[in-house]
Amino acid sequence: MNDTSPGRHMAAEVAEQPDVLAALVRARSDIAAVAETIAARPPRFALLAARGSSDHAALYAKYLVEVLLGLPTGLVSPSTTTLYHAEQDLTDVLLISVSQSGGSYDLLEVTQAARARGALTVAVTNTPSSPLQEAAELSVDVRAGTEHAVAATKTYTATLLALYLLVDAVRGGRAEHVADIGELAARTLAGAEEDVERAVERYRFADRILTTARGYSYATALEGALKLAETSYLPTRAYSGADLLHGPVAAVDAETAVLGITSAGRGGEAMRDVLAAVSERGADLLCVGSAARAVPSAALTVPVPESAEEVAPILEVLPMQRLALGLALARGVDPDQPRGLRKVTRTR
Amino acid sequence: MNDTSPGRHMAAEVAEQPDVLAALVRARSDIAAVAETIAARPPRFALLAARGSSDHAALYAKYLVEVLLGLPTGLVSPSTTTLYHAEQDLTDVLLISVSQSGGSYDLLEVTQAARARGALTVAVTNTPSSPLQEAAELSVDVRAGTEHAVAATKTYTATLLALYLLVDAVRGGRAEHVADIGELAARTLAGAEEDVERAVERYRFADRILTTARGYSYATALEGALKLAETSYLPTRAYSGADLLHGPVAAVDAETAVLGITSAGRGGEAMRDVLAAVSERGADLLCVGSAARAVPSAALTVPVPESAEEVAPILEVLPMQRLALGLALARGVDPDQPRGLRKVTRTR
Repeated sequence: MNDTSPGRHMAAEVAEQPDVLAALVRARSDIAAVAETIAARPPRFALLAARGSSDHAALYAKYLVEVLLGLPTGLVSPSTTTLYHAEQDLTDVLLISVSQSGGSYDLLEVTQAARARGALTVAVTNTPSSPLQEAAELSVDVRAGTEHAVAATKTYTATLLALYLLVDAVRGGRAEHVADIGELAARTLAGAEEDVERAVERYRFADRILTTARGYSYATALEGALKLAETSYLPTRAYSGADLLHGPVAAVDAETAVLGITSAGRGGEAMRDVLAAVSERGADLLCVGSAARAVPSAALTVPVPESAEEVAPILEVLPMQRLALGLALARGVDPDQPRGLRKVTRTR
Repeated sequence: MNDTSPGRHMAAEVAEQPDVLAALVRARSDIAAVAETIAARPPRFALLAARGSSDHAALYAKYLVEVLLGLPTGLVSPSTTTLYHAEQDLTDVLLISVSQSGGSYDLLEVTQAARARGALTVAVTNTPSSPLQEAAELSVDVRAGTEHAVAATKTYTATLLALYLLVDAVRGGRAEHVADIGELAARTLAGAEEDVERAVERYRFADRILTTARGYSYATALEGALKLAETSYLPTRAYSGADLLHGPVAAVDAETAVLGITSAGRGGEAMRDVLAAVSERGADLLCVGSAARAVPSAALTVPVPESAEEVAPILEVLPMQRLALGLALARGVDPDQPRGLRKVTRTR
């Protein structure tokens, strides 16, 4: 085989996700063992450290830890460690470092420093025996296989699922809500094909795009915006629905395409006012998610099979990845070879 | 007086800041009393809750609390309380709620819930006897006076200063670094006038603007981007310098104006590679801060008087506010009357 077509890696890896997710659920006993160690040394506060796409997975996990485990949780600002050498007391703290490559210098430094300061450290990575995995006391392998595309797709959804399985196991759950996640992902991809094609046509010439969501799905808005920015060079901005109404809605007009993520549940319900407000301002609205069809003002919808709200982000992002891929190709860009990007962050 | 010129409120309130800041430093004993109560019941973790501009002030405070107090710190996702009713154990937690109006429903709910769950709660607000102030056990008045403009300016810098004074007092400091902050602010505004005028001319027709910074100054990048979005309807995106290199730099090209915040200190130093990378990609670079002149590839610079790095955000944002005001007026928009905005968030 000698396929050199643009976007072939990204397209293949997007399509792999149903199998990757199903396999990770089957292998969940490894994650349950890590969860057991955490449950035996119960933390009082959680921190999540990540960069890029993994940072969106970390935000998703922040909601899970707060809601399902009842722990106050923060996202780490790596520079307080790497630039300012903050001397924090991290006794009783659980630090989860999330990185597909396991090779980011700053996360490595954050993890080493946190462990030295008393935190229980867990690396969630797609690269076994990476420096990050070695630095952390415990580790979770997201088992997505090698990712060739620069844009993270299967490592992102596998990371979300790994984090869900971990949190669910810590609270003594049995992964009921993700038992058939692979099949749901396959249905999502198959069902979204035509709608995404229409969206690609509609947004071929868009140059003002923003994404928005609330609750668990906010991670999807952030990740969708990043995918569009890094593959199609569309300077896409993501807003929590609440923040959007607080100020940036002033910049929304008929030249703006708004991609709203709305899944069944409390986050999706809380988006109703937000989506009505952007529609009133004339924005062109695309809704993605299991509650997408319930938004009367949407110009386009990409429905997603219904799931428990806390696992919807694993599914909602699939059409967003396809949209990013499709728009990149329509604009003549190879999403596998974005200008000026490398796969591992080297910042400190 | 019957001035109805566009932007008059915002212009007046920007200009008031040196006096507001100087007065707050003089009144710092009120804040020191709150700090004493906190120091007497030392927290082990800190949480910050805010929306909009106040959220950027909260991020600034997160760095302060982590670096100067050594406490692990998180920014609250209000929806885990307001939508999902997370039942967190907040014993030993300090919750600081930041809101100029003190009237946001979601922050009120977060603060009430946190207090009921054991947190020591502090409201930092510009509105004495607001619902938020009544809900919290302790409160800090930012003393900025009534803000008429919809875009927060003096309440933002006064909030930054109030948070600095609070954290500094908790660690037993004597506010040395902000002793002359009012005078420095006056020099910043006076010194920036011509440079900002040039920047307004240069970016009159820009439609791709992003802001970037690292460390303490990241708050300035976020706040600058929000000001541009809400007053000039420019869909501006802010990136931490580290995150920018990780992916979104792919969207940077010769059509992009990059506003880089670089002040003397570790954050500014860490921006060198980032600013070199965006310049290599052909971006038009404006640098703001006390280290701005040290960036060789900048097309324009707005120097700011040097200060301790941890208080630089109070100064750096002043030219960003002026730029937002100037661009709004140049584009024929009244920044005092942005379309579709109200001053108090009503989201839950």
